[in-house]
Amino acid sequence: MNKDQSISLKATDVRTTAKLAKQAAGNLAQITAKRRTEVLELIASRLEQKQNEILEANKIDVLAAKELVAKGGMSESLLNRLKLDSTKIAELVAGTKYLATLDDPLGKVTLARELDEGLCLYRITCPIGVIGVIFESRPDALLQIATLCIKSGDASILKGGAEAQNSNAKLFELIVQALTDSSFPAHTVNLLESRQDIEKLLHADEFIDLIIPRGSNELVKHIQNNTRIPVLGHAEGICHIYVDRTADLKQAIKIIVDAKVQYPAACNAVETLLLHKDIASNFLPPVIDELIKHKVTLKADERSREILNHKDVAAATIEDWSKEYGDLILSIKIVNSLEEAISHINTYGSGHTDTIITENSLSAEQFFASVNSAGVFINASTRFADGFRYGFGAEVGISTGKLHPRGPVGLEGLVTYKYKLVGHGHIVQDYSGTKAKKFTHRPIPLQS
Amino acid sequence: MNKDQSISLKATDVRTTAKLAKQAAGNLAQITAKRRTEVLELIASRLEQKQNEILEANKIDVLAAKELVAKGGMSESLLNRLKLDSTKIAELVAGTKYLATLDDPLGKVTLARELDEGLCLYRITCPIGVIGVIFESRPDALLQIATLCIKSGDASILKGGAEAQNSNAKLFELIVQALTDSSFPAHTVNLLESRQDIEKLLHADEFIDLIIPRGSNELVKHIQNNTRIPVLGHAEGICHIYVDRTADLKQAIKIIVDAKVQYPAACNAVETLLLHKDIASNFLPPVIDELIKHKVTLKADERSREILNHKDVAAATIEDWSKEYGDLILSIKIVNSLEEAISHINTYGSGHTDTIITENSLSAEQFFASVNSAGVFINASTRFADGFRYGFGAEVGISTGKLHPRGPVGLEGLVTYKYKLVGHGHIVQDYSGTKAKKFTHRPIPLQS
Repeated sequence: MNKDQSISLKATDVRTTAKLAKQAAGNLAQITAKRRTEVLELIASRLEQKQNEILEANKIDVLAAKELVAKGGMSESLLNRLKLDSTKIAELVAGTKYLATLDDPLGKVTLARELDEGLCLYRITCPIGVIGVIFESRPDALLQIATLCIKSGDASILKGGAEAQNSNAKLFELIVQALTDSSFPAHTVNLLESRQDIEKLLHADEFIDLIIPRGSNELVKHIQNNTRIPVLGHAEGICHIYVDRTADLKQAIKIIVDAKVQYPAACNAVETLLLHKDIASNFLPPVIDELIKHKVTLKADERSREILNHKDVAAATIEDWSKEYGDLILSIKIVNSLEEAISHINTYGSGHTDTIITENSLSAEQFFASVNSAGVFINASTRFADGFRYGFGAEVGISTGKLHPRGPVGLEGLVTYKYKLVGHGHIVQDYSGTKAKKFTHRPIPLQS
Repeated sequence: MNKDQSISLKATDVRTTAKLAKQAAGNLAQITAKRRTEVLELIASRLEQKQNEILEANKIDVLAAKELVAKGGMSESLLNRLKLDSTKIAELVAGTKYLATLDDPLGKVTLARELDEGLCLYRITCPIGVIGVIFESRPDALLQIATLCIKSGDASILKGGAEAQNSNAKLFELIVQALTDSSFPAHTVNLLESRQDIEKLLHADEFIDLIIPRGSNELVKHIQNNTRIPVLGHAEGICHIYVDRTADLKQAIKIIVDAKVQYPAACNAVETLLLHKDIASNFLPPVIDELIKHKVTLKADERSREILNHKDVAAATIEDWSKEYGDLILSIKIVNSLEEAISHINTYGSGHTDTIITENSLSAEQFFASVNSAGVFINASTRFADGFRYGFGAEVGISTGKLHPRGPVGLEGLVTYKYKLVGHGHIVQDYSGTKAKKFTHRPIPLQS
């Protein structure tokens, strides 16, 4: 690769990078779906070819990280996320190839309407523009996000973790080389490396259209509080399971254990269990037994503790209702009604994913209608809230905001739309005043 | 109406109001389309019956405003917007009846997919929640926005202008009475009256999901800079018309005059005219003649002024390219290419609406693909960018943001979606590890 270009693509001046990315986005919007697909296939095959180089670069990062871990300057789990191996590379190759096969998300007509003879309105999906992504440690995230943005026609500015510096540089070089060889606009994908760059990125709101932070709750909160750019993401995942009066006990136990134990660090793991008072004394003891078998620490309200004779269960305080444990800890509360469960969830939840376990379809409908979260589940584990499981191919994150994109965000979440109005010299004056022409507002059938 | 309830519904504590509105939103989400339609019909008929009361209340506001105008404390145009008459009331009645007839925007399934046997995912439209609307002077806006929010199942908090206090109170009383008589949740619609309430509203981000400011650019900018709540709206409408090399001269003149002259104060009026260099000397003189006939003041770049021998045309400065005149003033610039026109628009525009005039379909497609604005028009006046003209029934505003809702925002922009996953005890553990079950990810046909 041309060394000078590589350097210029890693320009340290964040505003300049952002400005160049915005220019790239303008040209990127004109590149056909075929060319976007082909460049992804090229990236996948280069990834296969160059895996040794990538693993070598990763070794340098891992070695440095191991020293840090030994000194207590880094956690063991961060080290694990940093490490690449041939299995992970194979997964990345397969993922990139799969992404290439997915339907093009751009140019889809979502509304078509004749306003009057010869005057037609279309709403058509298009790239968002420039997307800034801030992530920690995992170098595989760099590749996944960069390729998703290529598919969605968005320019991207990636800020990786310093600990993955060598791995990221190698992956970035590979992507830029493939884009250059395929005559994509320069600055389609950009890499920032210094921690100080984050603040500058957050202030480049004339150039950047969306920020996606992937990392700790603190990182996400910090970013949400320090930028005018829309932020996609969630600070917290406080998910609930509500066991209704008519729940099936066996099913309830199975779902609760899965949602808490299968991967407790995930944002879609359950944090609070709510039980209807009428079934609490029957349900609570067997549920608790099963959870304790799985080494779950329990924190319960006073009514639950009475049923359990206070054994093995600490008292929950009000702080527990809004805590994301991210660990084998579960808070428990008895509620008097479905309405109280809904109100608890809407008050203390984080709008991520909440499940009702019930055999009563009216309760299920009321729960679905009234819980405000991005995911409202019926008789299924909260852990299903995930882009891959939803069939989105991959996800850049899960949004707990109310507006689009909401929930697990895949390709569809990385596009927006614009209105195209095609006329033949039509003017508004003709539709005003006493002799105003009438609009026809006739739907134009959509081709599928 | 019960006086106490009226008072409690106008609680001056903004946080309490916001919290109660959030509670109302939870219950509102369960109200059927039929009941939402019926209450709108009731509001329309009460509006007809009580128009004298409303006009009486409005007279008090107008009288006070006239005194202010005489003292120079209010503009004549503000006074005109404040004034109601029987024609305006008839329009409000007709608008409310029409809104009642529109398709229900809620409960629409926009994605349906089997994840595995007995495990089905649906994406379903639902209300956003609580919408805060800040508007100035026009009392008819209160009724339009409140009724749109009722139709979309959203709770609303309305902050009207102090100058419309009596008119607003009367309209609000009528709406609340109709909602109460139809057993809608208390605090479905809320009214704030003091200017100090705005700041408190902007900080109630746990309760409010979207802020819609309707007013001056300064108001909108102030709000965007002072809240973490998503803001729907636009600070500026800097719209362009680009006359391509292959444009039809007669069509160009017609569209340019309409876009500048028909209603120059509108945000969708054109502010800058860009002309391709090859046609400038032919096009510019007749276009200018026509604009001057319509009393338009012109500010042009040096190349344009040379063609015109500097007559009647002042020199444009760089500030002109990013100015929303909102008046009979137009800036003019000659560009060397379509690409330069696109780049100018993406640099100086506000992402509102931009038009190309061309007979070349490739130029039209390139313009559409590369211009970043919410509306990209071909051979039609920028003035068509409007919810009513688009056939949205009514609009709460025009959004120049990149994400949904974008462009003119009507009913569809006031709803969001959530994911519903219906299982039968499905757990993620079964889809993990070496014996992992495979997802089917089979589309479920949508009923239309």
